[in-house]
Amino acid sequence: MPNHAPTPTAVKADLMVCPRWIIPVEPYGVVQEDHALIITNGQIVDLLPREAAIQRYTAESIETLPDHVLIPGLVNTHTHAGMTLMRGIADDQPLKTWLEDWIWPLETRWVSTDMVRDGTLLACAEMLLSGITTFNDMYFFPEAAAEAVDQAGIRASLGILAFEVPTAYGHGADDYLNRGLATRDALRDHPRLSFMLAPHAPYTVSDATFDKVATLAAQTGLGIHIHVHETQQEVDDSLRQYGERPLERLERLGILGPQTLAVHAVALNDSDIALMARHNVHMAHCPTANLKLGSGMAPSSQLHAAGINIALGTDGAAGNNRLDLLSEARLAGLLAKGMEQNPGLFPAHSLIYMATLGGARALGLQDQIGSLAIGKHADLCAIALDSTATLPVFDPASQIIHCAGREHVTHVWVDGQCVVKKKHLTEISHGEIYAKAKTWENRFRG
Amino acid sequence: MPNHAPTPTAVKADLMVCPRWIIPVEPYGVVQEDHALIITNGQIVDLLPREAAIQRYTAESIETLPDHVLIPGLVNTHTHAGMTLMRGIADDQPLKTWLEDWIWPLETRWVSTDMVRDGTLLACAEMLLSGITTFNDMYFFPEAAAEAVDQAGIRASLGILAFEVPTAYGHGADDYLNRGLATRDALRDHPRLSFMLAPHAPYTVSDATFDKVATLAAQTGLGIHIHVHETQQEVDDSLRQYGERPLERLERLGILGPQTLAVHAVALNDSDIALMARHNVHMAHCPTANLKLGSGMAPSSQLHAAGINIALGTDGAAGNNRLDLLSEARLAGLLAKGMEQNPGLFPAHSLIYMATLGGARALGLQDQIGSLAIGKHADLCAIALDSTATLPVFDPASQIIHCAGREHVTHVWVDGQCVVKKKHLTEISHGEIYAKAKTWENRFRG
Repeated sequence: MPNHAPTPTAVKADLMVCPRWIIPVEPYGVVQEDHALIITNGQIVDLLPREAAIQRYTAESIETLPDHVLIPGLVNTHTHAGMTLMRGIADDQPLKTWLEDWIWPLETRWVSTDMVRDGTLLACAEMLLSGITTFNDMYFFPEAAAEAVDQAGIRASLGILAFEVPTAYGHGADDYLNRGLATRDALRDHPRLSFMLAPHAPYTVSDATFDKVATLAAQTGLGIHIHVHETQQEVDDSLRQYGERPLERLERLGILGPQTLAVHAVALNDSDIALMARHNVHMAHCPTANLKLGSGMAPSSQLHAAGINIALGTDGAAGNNRLDLLSEARLAGLLAKGMEQNPGLFPAHSLIYMATLGGARALGLQDQIGSLAIGKHADLCAIALDSTATLPVFDPASQIIHCAGREHVTHVWVDGQCVVKKKHLTEISHGEIYAKAKTWENRFRG
Repeated sequence: MPNHAPTPTAVKADLMVCPRWIIPVEPYGVVQEDHALIITNGQIVDLLPREAAIQRYTAESIETLPDHVLIPGLVNTHTHAGMTLMRGIADDQPLKTWLEDWIWPLETRWVSTDMVRDGTLLACAEMLLSGITTFNDMYFFPEAAAEAVDQAGIRASLGILAFEVPTAYGHGADDYLNRGLATRDALRDHPRLSFMLAPHAPYTVSDATFDKVATLAAQTGLGIHIHVHETQQEVDDSLRQYGERPLERLERLGILGPQTLAVHAVALNDSDIALMARHNVHMAHCPTANLKLGSGMAPSSQLHAAGINIALGTDGAAGNNRLDLLSEARLAGLLAKGMEQNPGLFPAHSLIYMATLGGARALGLQDQIGSLAIGKHADLCAIALDSTATLPVFDPASQIIHCAGREHVTHVWVDGQCVVKKKHLTEISHGEIYAKAKTWENRFRG
C-alpha cells in the first residue's frame, strides 16, 4: 500500500479491510478491485477505492489481504447444530432407518443442555472456520445453543420447536412452543440472536399445532422454518393420511407465506412449485443431505425460474456430514448444470448470492446482513486465492465457487469482531472442542 | 508410544509410519488401529501391530501420526495437467463452446514445452497437496510434463497422444504417435513414469489412426486412454457419421480390452454397458467435469453392477476446476445415492477403493500401487482427523469420504520419499509456482 498519510480531516473508523477483490453481492455480479471496506461500531460505513479510503479514513486497525477476495459472511439456512456430535455415526442408511434406528434412540438417551451446548459449540467452530457467519438452527434446548453462539461470536437464528412426540426437552407441541417462546423472551436483546418458529415437518406436526404456529407467526411477526417434501414417501404418506400433498395442507393451515422457509423441497410437482411461488415461500436447498440420504435432487432450476428465492443449507452434520456452505454452493451449481444438461445455469455470482443474500432473505435478515451494503452488520469472509489450488485467477467469483474450499477462508468477522484470524478461531479453544468431542464420542459408543 | 528398545536382532528399515488408523484397501473394508507400516528402499515391507513393529524393526525415521488415518496415495486416472494454467478462464460454457471458442484458440497460440512444464508443475503441486500420488495425463509435449513429474516427485502415466488436427506439438496423428513413442523410449527407465496410448476421442481420431493404435497396443503391451461417450451429442454425431455408436466403432477397430480406460462414459445405453463389461474395459468416472460442462451423470451404479472397474478422474483444471480426487470420490458416492434414491450405494470403503486400487487397475499398475500390500511401492497419504470438521470419529472411512477435505492431508510419500510434510511440499517452492502461474495468467489475458 502506498504510504499516504491521512488528511488532517480524516474520519475515524474501527477497521479498514483492504483485500485485492471485493464482491459486495449488492450490486449483483460486481467484483471491485483494490477497494477498502470501512467498519465502525460493527457496521459497514463505507466501501470505496483503496486510495480514497486511505485519504479519507484513519482506522484503528487495518487488515491488508493482498491475494484475497472479501465477500459477505455465508448464511447457512438449515442445520441442527447440536447433532454435530453424532457426525458419521450411521452412514449409508435410508432416512427412515437412519432416524428411527440410530438418531432418535441416541437422542432419547442423550439429548440434554450439555449435549446441545457442546455440539453447537463444535458446529460453531466448524462453521466459522468455513466462512459461515449466520446459521439457522432447529434443535432441542435452544437456550443451550444460545450459550454456544454467545461464546463463539457467531450469529444465529434459533428455532422455536414444535412437534408432537415428547422428549427430554418437553412434553409435546405446546410445551415446546412455550419453552421456545420463553427462550426468545429471555434472549431478545442479544445482538446476534434471532428466532423463527420451527414446526419440524408435516409428518410430525398435527393440524392443531400448525394452527397455533400460524397464530403465533401472525402475532409475533416471526418467520417459520420447516422441513417440506423431503422425500416422495412423505408426499405419498400425506396423500394417504390427509388426502392432500404436504404443501397443500400447509397452505390450508396458513403456514405458507413470505416469511416461510421450506427446507429440502425435493419431491415437488409443477403445482407444488406454483404454490410456493404464489406464497413467496423461500427454499433452503440442501443438496448434499438430499443426495446422501437418497432423497433425490431438488428441481432448483425450476424453482429459480418460478421466482422462488433459493437459499442454501448444510443440514445437520449427523447426516451431511459437513457444515460447509461453500461446497453446498458448488454442488448446487454442478447439480443443476448436470440435471438440465445446461452449463450456463447458476453462474458463480448467482451461487455466491444464494449463499449470502439469498440466505439473509430466507431468514428475514436482509436489512441486516447478506451483502456488503452500507449500514449492514460487518459480517465478512475473506478467502485467499494464492494457493496451488486457486491459481491462476481469471475470475475471483469462479475461483470461490469452483476452486476454493473452506480451507482457503482466512479471516471472518461478525459484527466487526474478528472471530477467525489467519485460519484460527479467536473465541474458541481447539483443545476444548477436541476434548469435548472425544468425551461425547466415547459416551455414544458406550 | 511406549519406550521399548528394539530387540538386538531388530531388522533395519528406512521408515516406520505409525498412524492411529490404517486402511490398506487390500483386504477390502478393513480399518487397522494402532498398526505400523514399514518401508525400505521405497517399498512396503511390513504392516503389523505397532507394538510388534517397535520390537521387530529399527527404522531410520519414524513418523508418528496420532490422529491420522493412513491410506494408499490417491490415483487420478484422468487429467490434462498442463491445462491447469487455464483454470477458470471460461466457466459456465457448454463443452463445444468452451473447447472451440476458448480452449483451442488459447492452446493454438500458447501451447509449448514451457507452458506444459509450468502447468504440469502447478498441477503436481496441487495434486500432491491433495493426496494424489499418481496421475494419468493426456496432453501435448509429454516430455515437458515428465520434467515436472521428475521435479515434483509424483508418479505419472503419460499419454502417447493421437488425433488428426495439427498443432504446435505435431503435424497430425502419425507425428504425435512417433513423438510420444520417442518420449517413452527416452524415459522408459524412469522409476515413476509409465505410458498409455492416448487417442483423444472417437470424434477426433480416424479409423486409420485407431488401427495404428490397436496395432501399437498389441506390439507394446501399452494400455489405451480415451475419452468415450462424454455427451449424447457425441453419440448422435457418430451414429450420423459412421452408423455406429462410438463404443461399437471402437470395438470394431479393436480398441476395447482389459487395458482400455474409457473416460467419462456418461451417455450410455444398456448395450454400451454390456459391451464395456464384455471387454473388461475400465471406466474413469469424472463426475464434477460431467456436471460442470452439462454433459450429465454417468450411470455409475449400473456400470458397477455390470462388474466394470470404476476409477476416478478429476479431468483438467480448466474444466473442473479442481484437481481434488477426494471430492470426486465424495461426489461419486453422493450422485449415485441421489440418482438411484438408494443411500446404501457406494459405501465409504468402496469409494476409497475407487480412488486408489480401482485407479491402479485402470492404469495397469495394480501390482505396483493402489493398496498397502507388502511389495508395493510406498505411495501413501495421511489424513488428519483432529480438526473441527472431522470430529468426532466413529468411522475413519466415513470421515475420509464425507467430512475430510484435501486440506486435511498432512503427509504424502511417493516411493517412500516424503513429498508433502505437515501440509508443505518438500520438492517444489510455492514462490516458484506462484510466480509462474501469475506470468501465464498475464500472458493469457494479453
